[in-house]
Amino acid sequence: MQKKQKYNSALEEKKGIPSPEITDDSAISKVVSKRKKQPSARDLIKGILDGNITSLSRAITLVESKNPKHLEKANTIIKGCLPYANNSVRIGVTGVPGVGKSTFIEALGKHLISLNKKIAVLAVDPSSSITKGSILGDKTRMADLVKEPNAYIRPSASGDSLGGVARKTRETIILCEAAGFDTIIIETVGVGQSETTVHSMVDFFLLLKLSGAGDELQGIKRGIIEMADAIVINKADGDNVKRAKLAKVEFARALHLYPEKESSWSPPVSLCSALNNEGIEDVWHMIMEYLIMTKNNNFFTKKRQEQNKFWLLQTIEGQLKFDFFNNKIIKPELQKQLKLIEDNKTTPFAAAEYLLKLI
Amino acid sequence: MQKKQKYNSALEEKKGIPSPEITDDSAISKVVSKRKKQPSARDLIKGILDGNITSLSRAITLVESKNPKHLEKANTIIKGCLPYANNSVRIGVTGVPGVGKSTFIEALGKHLISLNKKIAVLAVDPSSSITKGSILGDKTRMADLVKEPNAYIRPSASGDSLGGVARKTRETIILCEAAGFDTIIIETVGVGQSETTVHSMVDFFLLLKLSGAGDELQGIKRGIIEMADAIVINKADGDNVKRAKLAKVEFARALHLYPEKESSWSPPVSLCSALNNEGIEDVWHMIMEYLIMTKNNNFFTKKRQEQNKFWLLQTIEGQLKFDFFNNKIIKPELQKQLKLIEDNKTTPFAAAEYLLKLI
Repeated sequence: MQKKQKYNSALEEKKGIPSPEITDDSAISKVVSKRKKQPSARDLIKGILDGNITSLSRAITLVESKNPKHLEKANTIIKGCLPYANNSVRIGVTGVPGVGKSTFIEALGKHLISLNKKIAVLAVDPSSSITKGSILGDKTRMADLVKEPNAYIRPSASGDSLGGVARKTRETIILCEAAGFDTIIIETVGVGQSETTVHSMVDFFLLLKLSGAGDELQGIKRGIIEMADAIVINKADGDNVKRAKLAKVEFARALHLYPEKESSWSPPVSLCSALNNEGIEDVWHMIMEYLIMTKNNNFFTKKRQEQNKFWLLQTIEGQLKFDFFNNKIIKPELQKQLKLIEDNKTTPFAAAEYLLKLI
Repeated sequence: MQKKQKYNSALEEKKGIPSPEITDDSAISKVVSKRKKQPSARDLIKGILDGNITSLSRAITLVESKNPKHLEKANTIIKGCLPYANNSVRIGVTGVPGVGKSTFIEALGKHLISLNKKIAVLAVDPSSSITKGSILGDKTRMADLVKEPNAYIRPSASGDSLGGVARKTRETIILCEAAGFDTIIIETVGVGQSETTVHSMVDFFLLLKLSGAGDELQGIKRGIIEMADAIVINKADGDNVKRAKLAKVEFARALHLYPEKESSWSPPVSLCSALNNEGIEDVWHMIMEYLIMTKNNNFFTKKRQEQNKFWLLQTIEGQLKFDFFNNKIIKPELQKQLKLIEDNKTTPFAAAEYLLKLI
């Protein structure tokens, strides 16, 4: 099952198959018997629902593809998986490089597997298209977790834009859920708007911090502390324990400055040492408490619905903007108007009106 | 000059005057000699540049008008004033109701007038269209300042949307600056997105707070502390002084949790009693320090340019969205797609694609 297969989309195209749902790959293979058999959308859906990891990986590859034929097939698969999705807990983990995200996720993941859970680990990393995968790219960083049959680790999709990466990740979540993964962990690093993006696709958003070393003062973008459902101070071990305890008090105090969250949840601050596997169980207990509370007060469902609506509007707005600002007439005129604004010869509003009237 | 004048825009329309710039009101008044003379755009520009308050008020009324003819005239006036604008200091003041914004602005304003400055006080209050002006609506709240010839107080423009109010306020700033006001104070209260809006049109953003009474924990929306260039704890008088000093320490500590601002400015926390006129001079010194620093490191100019660009893009995006979501075809279809998403029958992305293809 692990051998490489080439998707013969060109063939499908030639045959003019009207809908991927009725793609009959056996027919194709009869015609071109030397070609390897390509799984149909239906095959992949069935595989995913059976928990077949190869089917899942292939489907995600289709989701991540830029080939329009692949995307059409991907959409069919997502549609088929949708009724079986939405039944996991989605956890976002963020923190500056060096805070120990991979070690933390591995420790948390292994704990969850010991509780008979199925874990999928994804990443949203807008920098990965430039750096060729800076987080999760090297699977050996979670060497133990990757060996677990109940864990599935998938590096960040590369993409031209955070919006593109976000969409692919959202759709990958659906596929993983349909494949039976009950806990989805999404890792991100504070680049661009990635935390906001991840925050808007998870149920619980966890901020990893370090004590001391000036980390309180730097490296974390404005607004992230406010989004956090919990702050976990990692590497609270050895000489660091005392400083970590001080940092805990300081963060708890800072969190108190914020008004109550809509979830009614007060974000706690806790300590852990992912390396020594200390405090990981407590983190999970904390997440469980959150889930019980927000499922009881209905915030859990409400948040997911709002996230869906957010993504719908976000996608539409993104496309409208893209179409406008990439318009051949607008592009040069926008530059001219910006110059006029800079020279105090027009206002932003007059310039906007002028540009909008052009198309 | 104070007598009421009715703008005879209907007449202008009949005559089909091609551009407000060449509006010859004397010609109109000859034709309809019984009509009161209406100042032309050119008259108003001249009046504003001469520092005539009546001209300024009339021009602002045109800016705030919903009559398209008035807006055309307003745009001409703004264009004429633009070369003389941009030379003031713009200060935003926010804080929950009861924090003493009016008293604070009055005390600061009077101090600035004693330094021979000319002060304009505006407001952005998205709630005012509903409550009919909740801030600055009652000018008697700044009874002393309103008497000063070098102070100009203008209540919040009412509007259907925060975007509309924001635009009117931005344009009013230009007119006030052209009229020679060197310090523009913009008041807002934490409703909707109003602080973000005000933050994006001022050079210095000041958050007023109270000590004790649980104010640290409630009432201020997430993100506002992060936007503040200074936190000023008001009502630090009488029995409150001790609590105010404690609050100062707590806020200073909280501010330290944030990373350095792009301006390189560390937002200070200071105490004042606007009622007793204590600490007001210190606040102004602090703002002066900020101005010296950001003008030296060029952040001041950079921020204004970014704000202009922000407003250009904001206006365009707002209009694109408005046009799309108010489209007669889209409106009912959007509701259908939202229901399908809720029932797990489609994804936000597939729904967005479907809707975008409709027009």
